[in-house]
Amino acid sequence: MTKSIITISRQYGSGGREIGARVAEHLGFAYYDKELIRRMALAGDMDEDLASSGGEGLMGKVSTLLLSRGGEGSDQHSLPLCDRMFLAQAQAIKQIASEGPCVIVGHCADYFLADCPGTLNIFIYAEGEARVQRVMARNGLDRHAAAARIKKTDKKRATFYEQYTERKWGCVSNYDLCCSSSSFGIDGVVDLIVGIALLP
Amino acid sequence: MTKSIITISRQYGSGGREIGARVAEHLGFAYYDKELIRRMALAGDMDEDLASSGGEGLMGKVSTLLLSRGGEGSDQHSLPLCDRMFLAQAQAIKQIASEGPCVIVGHCADYFLADCPGTLNIFIYAEGEARVQRVMARNGLDRHAAAARIKKTDKKRATFYEQYTERKWGCVSNYDLCCSSSSFGIDGVVDLIVGIALLP
Repeated sequence: MTKSIITISRQYGSGGREIGARVAEHLGFAYYDKELIRRMALAGDMDEDLASSGGEGLMGKVSTLLLSRGGEGSDQHSLPLCDRMFLAQAQAIKQIASEGPCVIVGHCADYFLADCPGTLNIFIYAEGEARVQRVMARNGLDRHAAAARIKKTDKKRATFYEQYTERKWGCVSNYDLCCSSSSFGIDGVVDLIVGIALLP
Repeated sequence: MTKSIITISRQYGSGGREIGARVAEHLGFAYYDKELIRRMALAGDMDEDLASSGGEGLMGKVSTLLLSRGGEGSDQHSLPLCDRMFLAQAQAIKQIASEGPCVIVGHCADYFLADCPGTLNIFIYAEGEARVQRVMARNGLDRHAAAARIKKTDKKRATFYEQYTERKWGCVSNYDLCCSSSSFGIDGVVDLIVGIALLP
């Protein structure tokens, strides 16, 4: 079936965010980045700067029962901050997915939408040197600082994801397709995803 | 660049072998299955039945130095059996890759050909129930026996691969593309790989 919701999870420095934006543009889908942050802040009744951290690096553990109720019936303000963040992500992403075709980058979207029909879950990765070069150029960092940022960011993403979902971040079984941007280039990966999304 | 060598690693029951054969047929590439076993047996001076086990489930550890020399200068018969198997795989696969366009399924081919230009390394996986159904139908097993065979076979493949390559079997970083056959179907994955292989 044609895919109307695309989630993109990605290693830091792999170009996943750019790929997501360009896929959305090609397909005429909504692209959620800053708007997702605004929705999360609204759902979690929190500051947008805080919501933009995505909860990565915070500590806590929301109960599965609470998540299954979408946090309803609880006073979310009494929860640890990163539990509130996870619930806010869940609410915002499920709402967004119900509104029409979209591309969502990051924020455990593959997990929240795992059972949502017409969803294509993608993981973008790249070999180490390509990621270092990309982060050096994009963020104006030297090699050492770029490598350190990649390591730290991916560790935070993996920890947050694994803590809440009980899945392993970047493990093939979470995704329909995992694709190396250093093998195919950004353009190549965009074309690949657009082609797959349009398959009958 | 157009790809002339395609390696396919796969979870047991994911349809990877069928996908490999059909990709080879579509592209007009040689497909290595039984012929690879014959070559391995020849390279390792061993029985074809033994070579067909691929060394999975055997114990041992060939030295990196020995592998880099392709086993030359050593008496391979003095090595543990699975070390001989690994060296035989390396020799047979590198020889095959030098002979022209081909598809090679399994046998750590992604590792041996990691630095070979024009190689496309693919990992095929599928969700658990799809694999169980496939193995039940193909091998005439009940659910329990199919699930047990899947678990045992993948464990052997992972152990052999990880023991010799010091990489994690099924980890995205070993491959250019990882693709779920339960998401796209066997036909869908074949079309996807053929399309990628033909990209300029």
